[in-house]
This record gives sequence, structure tokens and C-alpha cells, in this order.
Amino acid sequence: MDPQRIVEHLVKRNEIQESGKKIVLLVMDGLGDIRHPDNNFRTPLEQARCPNLDALAPKSALGRIIPVDYGITPGSGPAHLGLFGYDPREVEIGRGVLEVVGMGMELRPGDLAARANFCTVRGRTVVDRRAGRPSTEACAEKVKLLQEKIAKIDDVALIMRPGMGHRFGVIFRGPGLAAGVTDTDPHEDNEPIHEPKAETDAARKTADVVSKFQRKALEVLASSEPMNGVLLRGISEPPHIATVQERFGLRCGAIATYPMYRGLASLVGMDLVETGPSVEDEFQAFLSNRDNYDFFFIHAKPTDEAGEDGAAERKAKAIEAVDQKLPMLLKGSPEVLAITGDHSTPCPMKLHSWHPVPLLLHSPRCGADGRPRFTENECNGGSLGIFHAMHLLPLMLANAGLLDKYGA
Amino acid sequence: MDPQRIVEHLVKRNEIQESGKKIVLLVMDGLGDIRHPDNNFRTPLEQARCPNLDALAPKSALGRIIPVDYGITPGSGPAHLGLFGYDPREVEIGRGVLEVVGMGMELRPGDLAARANFCTVRGRTVVDRRAGRPSTEACAEKVKLLQEKIAKIDDVALIMRPGMGHRFGVIFRGPGLAAGVTDTDPHEDNEPIHEPKAETDAARKTADVVSKFQRKALEVLASSEPMNGVLLRGISEPPHIATVQERFGLRCGAIATYPMYRGLASLVGMDLVETGPSVEDEFQAFLSNRDNYDFFFIHAKPTDEAGEDGAAERKAKAIEAVDQKLPMLLKGSPEVLAITGDHSTPCPMKLHSWHPVPLLLHSPRCGADGRPRFTENECNGGSLGIFHAMHLLPLMLANAGLLDKYGA
Repeated sequence: MDPQRIVEHLVKRNEIQESGKKIVLLVMDGLGDIRHPDNNFRTPLEQARCPNLDALAPKSALGRIIPVDYGITPGSGPAHLGLFGYDPREVEIGRGVLEVVGMGMELRPGDLAARANFCTVRGRTVVDRRAGRPSTEACAEKVKLLQEKIAKIDDVALIMRPGMGHRFGVIFRGPGLAAGVTDTDPHEDNEPIHEPKAETDAARKTADVVSKFQRKALEVLASSEPMNGVLLRGISEPPHIATVQERFGLRCGAIATYPMYRGLASLVGMDLVETGPSVEDEFQAFLSNRDNYDFFFIHAKPTDEAGEDGAAERKAKAIEAVDQKLPMLLKGSPEVLAITGDHSTPCPMKLHSWHPVPLLLHSPRCGADGRPRFTENECNGGSLGIFHAMHLLPLMLANAGLLDKYGA
Repeated sequence: MDPQRIVEHLVKRNEIQESGKKIVLLVMDGLGDIRHPDNNFRTPLEQARCPNLDALAPKSALGRIIPVDYGITPGSGPAHLGLFGYDPREVEIGRGVLEVVGMGMELRPGDLAARANFCTVRGRTVVDRRAGRPSTEACAEKVKLLQEKIAKIDDVALIMRPGMGHRFGVIFRGPGLAAGVTDTDPHEDNEPIHEPKAETDAARKTADVVSKFQRKALEVLASSEPMNGVLLRGISEPPHIATVQERFGLRCGAIATYPMYRGLASLVGMDLVETGPSVEDEFQAFLSNRDNYDFFFIHAKPTDEAGEDGAAERKAKAIEAVDQKLPMLLKGSPEVLAITGDHSTPCPMKLHSWHPVPLLLHSPRCGADGRPRFTENECNGGSLGIFHAMHLLPLMLANAGLLDKYGA
């Protein structure tokens, strides 16, 4: 049997809801870190004072997860696909899709999404791919103009939303669209806007619509220099994947404040749960919606931001903030609780990295590794080992007692 | 190269027998366990007094093996396939095959095997799928009757053996048989016996033979109510796999007392060595047959039974019983000795589980991890890591110095 299908066959779909068991995946974004001279060889997890995690750790199973593969630094898309039980080496999320989803735009099956820039053109030549780096306000104003003037091309509706500075997102919605159209962005200045090319027969209509949009945008923006042209790239469709509910029979609620993570969760079919911005708000959202779902994805962002700023102390504080509210989460009696990150963002690097992410797994069936704390190094010697993130969700289902035996 | 074929290409086939090296895989069934409040956070391996294992552990390499995959709880079939060097996610053993093999029946290539029940029918309707749960004696009597009256259907011989209560095994032996026939068992009461359907053209003859057998059985059993019908399911053929000898050039002897494990060993081409029921008998069988084989699979069952009963103390005693006799095994000077289990059967769960199984590997080339004991938690940090069971056999060959270098 296809190894990825085994779990789908074994999951006790009929028992999940009836059992009332709750499975919770708490993701502290960019949690993992490295010991380094810059942080006196102590990671933020080691620096943080976390009495609640300290109490949980010895009674839990520890390990580390590899987001995508050895040495592979993931973006947020692949990192979350792995946590959601997909092989991020096989499922790709197009640039355009990630962009619009990150803006909180809703994608439907059959839609195409593109990442768009305003640019400055002279004739057909792009003289500045970023249109002199306009303000976000200026961007919003021009996107509004485009949306008013180009609501539709033939039978295809256009939905646009402004981003930061020169960037915006475009969704094409209509019959007969298909991915496989080249970028109109020449990717360097002083080149002409590229004519979109269909790479397959199925993509011909799309190429035609994109081409018409490019031309109309030039007309609409004719008097708007330096924002007098647009460039599209990463024209892509939502991944053709079965949802988490279809694959594993889980009703999934996503509790996240940033549009990117809400968008990623929605791509795999999770419901988006209303929540305020703080960890406390998020845990409250879990408690309030406890009965509506079997599986909860809860996303906390501040650890990653601190990591990208190289602010180890702030990252430790962000971990402590989660630790302080942990009793709220435990009050909801999750049958299985996994605490981890989507990837590492080591402060000494100020970037996402490939380093395996610490993982704590707690359930009545997890065993007790007896490790005193939840840190990178303690996790190295845990009973879960160091494994690819895509196996975490099966492991959580097993720990909930919701997987049948394989073979007799 | 196909990763699974690499070892087959590298193995020094000509040197194995000549070297006189003996490779021994000692499987304590269901060995792995978990720390839990129910056992005061001490696993049976931690509770057991094992002076011989304690002496061996620091001079050995430790690790843990994942029987099938993360979170997957294996039946005995997939668990042993992994230990024998096969990928149990790819090789499936049908229900019928496992049933007859577990009864100690000998399967040959081209045979088909089915799991059979006596049932109670009125007309063609099954009113009790278990025929009122007859005694094992009554089952044996009716199987004898069927065997006498239906020795053959066309050119296909039938071989039957009684099991426990309402269950028995059937082997179909003759030309032109193929798996791909649906169950005649309706899987619920008050349904008619199902007509067997061929799922492929190749299976048409088999469907016809099964159908005739079903009808003849109704005739033969007409006056035997409540055991007046039979139901077949899991009609399957032995897996089409190369034997361990073919793959790795090893002459393999299996020392096991339970029919299931003898059957599984025979499916991969191992010879079945005569043995008495105790661990001492089994180790003596190894010593007596030492010169006849290169690889020995020795299976000890009591650990699993204690685990399924939730009897942690008894499981510890079963481990101690193996430990006490270990010097006998060592007297046979195995070049490589691996001590592990086929899966975990944690006493707090009273079931097979997915938890990685502790592994001790001893050889002149294994290194010495210096870990004080052979326990789950000591194995977490061993030099072998936590890895899929299918890689153990290659590792044992390497530790015997019987694998060539890969590439120049």
C-alpha cells in the first residue's frame, strides 16, 4: 500500500467525533534555535522560565521534527503542510496562491492566483520593477482604480487586494482557467513586459486573459507614472489535495491571527475560528469552540518575529508568554497535545533554518521520557527521535487511540 | 539503485558460509513498553533484573526500531516482515494466508488460502455468522466431514484444518488459481451468503471453484444445523517475494514455538527448526543446529502475552527468563546478536502499539555505546538511533563484515 495512504485507511473515522477526544497542535512559529557564542550557548527555550512546560516535559514524549528534509530551510507554506500531514516535497503551493492566501483572500477550486507588482514603464519597457517603491496607501488607491475599471475580462472575474508597497494580489475566477502560464514580470529592469505564454493547451485561455489584463492595466494607469504598469508572476492554482477532513476524518479548527497561517489552514480545508490577537485569546477560542472540532491548529507568531530580529531575549519572553497561559489550554483536557514549531528561526541567523524543531507530545499513551525540560538538547534524546514533520499527525492520531492495527 | 536492492548487491554471498559466522536475531514478542502511572513510571525492562543483559549493554550499540511507520501499530505479520528485511508497507500478507500459516499449514506457491467460518443458514440467508459459537471439538468433527466429502473440486485439491470454535482454514491447491475473489461472508447476519466475484479475469476460475465449494458445503452440512453453512473471507495468495536466502544469500533457520511465527518465517523461505517450548529449548535448538544455518530467527512469546494481559510483573519475569538463559546463546558465539521485539505491547495499553522497540546489537564491529542498561530510555540515546525495522537485517549483515563497500 502507498505508505501515505496507510494512515487514511486505518483511521477510525466513526469513533472520532463520538469519542469526544480533542487533538491539539500548538505551533510556536520559528520555535527552534541553536546554541551559539552570540547567545552564550543557551537557546531561547533554555533561557526561558517555563514552569508549566517544565512540569509537562518529564511526563511527555520528546523528539525533533524535520520540516521538509535534511538541510532544507522551509518557507511557511511547506513547513505547515508538513505539520498538517502532507509531504511538502510532493505538494507545492504556488507563489501566487501563497501571496493571496497570505493577504487573507479566499481561494476557491478553479481559481488562479497571481502575485502582482506595480512598475514604471516607458513604452513597453519596464524601467523600475517596483514603481519607485510607493507607499502602501498609494498602492491601495491604485488597486482600487484597477478593480473599478477591470472587474471582469470576458467571463473571468478579477479580484484584487493591495499588499505592502508596490505589491498586490490578483485572483482570476471563471470557467476554463488552468495554471501553466509564464510570468509577465521580466525579473529585471530595462526589459519589456513579457507576453504571458501558455505552457499547455489547457492554459491558453488563461494566457489570453492575463494578456488582456496586462494591456487594460496599462490603459487604466496611463497617467499614473511612476505606477503606470503592472507585472504578474507565480500564476498558480490551489494545490489539488484532499483536505485534512477527507484524509483523516477530522473536523479541524484553525486558530491563528496572521492571514498567512489562516490561509494555509484554509487550503487544507480547516475552518477558521474567530480569535483575538493574544495567546490568551487564542486559547480562549479553543475553549469556546472545543465541541465543534476534533483537531485544533493553534498558531503563535511572536517567537518567529523575535528570531528574525535576532532578539533572543524577546524570543524567550514570547515562549514564556505561551507557557504562562498553558494551564488554560490544559483545562480543555486535550487527549493529545503536541507543542512544536513549523521550523527553526535561530536568533544568531535571523532567518528561517533547516534545524529540526523541538517537539513535545503529551497523551495518556505517550510514555514518559523523564526528560527534565523542553529544550532542543533534551528533545535530541527523546523517545520520538528526529523525524519528518509529516509523520506527526499520524503519531497524534495513534496517541489518541484512533488508528486501527495494520495487518493481522 | 533501488535502495532496497543495494544490500542484495553488496552482500558477500560467497563468504557467508565459508566464514562460519552466525547471525542471530532474538525477538522477544511485544518487548517494548511505556512508562506510565500504572507501572510507577518503570517499564518491565526497567523493572527486570537482567545481569546478563546489563553486562552486554555497555559493550553494545543500542537503538529503537519502528516496526512499520510512525504511529502505525502492526499486527504480527507486518511486524515480522520488517524484521526479516522487507518493507511491510509494500508487502501485504492476506488474511487467509495469515490464518492458515498461523494454523501451521504449509502454503506452496500458487496456493490460495481462505479464512473460513461455520455459520447457520436458513435457505441462503445467514442467520448466525458464528454458528452459535460451537466448541473446538465440534469444529474439528465438521471439518473432517467436509474434508472427506470435498477433497477436490475439478482439478483443485482442498486442504482444511480446524481452528478455534467456529473458525477453520482452507487451502485451494491446483493449476490456474489467482487471488482477486470477493468474500462469500456477508460480514453481517440476516444477509444471504455472497456469491464470490472475480475482480480480474485471472481470478475467474478461482471464483468458480469457491462458488462450487460453497454449494457443496451446504449439501454436505445440510443436516448439521447450527453448523450448516460455511463462509469464506480474505481469499489470498502467499506474497510474491524473494526469500531471505535469495535476497541475501543467508541459510536461515527459524526457532519458534507458535505456529503463527513459524508460518511467517516459512513465508520468507526460512527452514523451521525443531524445538521444545521453553527459551532453554530454543537456545539448545540454536546450539544443536548451529552449523546448518547462517542466520537464526529465535522467537520468544511470553513477553507479548504478559503485555496483552497488562501484567507488568509477569512481563518483567519473562524478560528475566530470557536473560537467565542468555549465556547459552552466547556460548554459540554469534558473530552478530540482535535482541529486540517485533513491536511494543505496553502493559498499560494491553494491546500492540506503535512505540519504537528497544534494540541491542552486539558484534565485534558494533562499537560500545557505554549505556548502563538495555531499556527503552537508554535505547533512545544509543548510536543506532530510531529507525525502521526493515533496516535491521542490513545492519546485522554489515556488523558481520559481510557487506561490500558501496561505490568506489
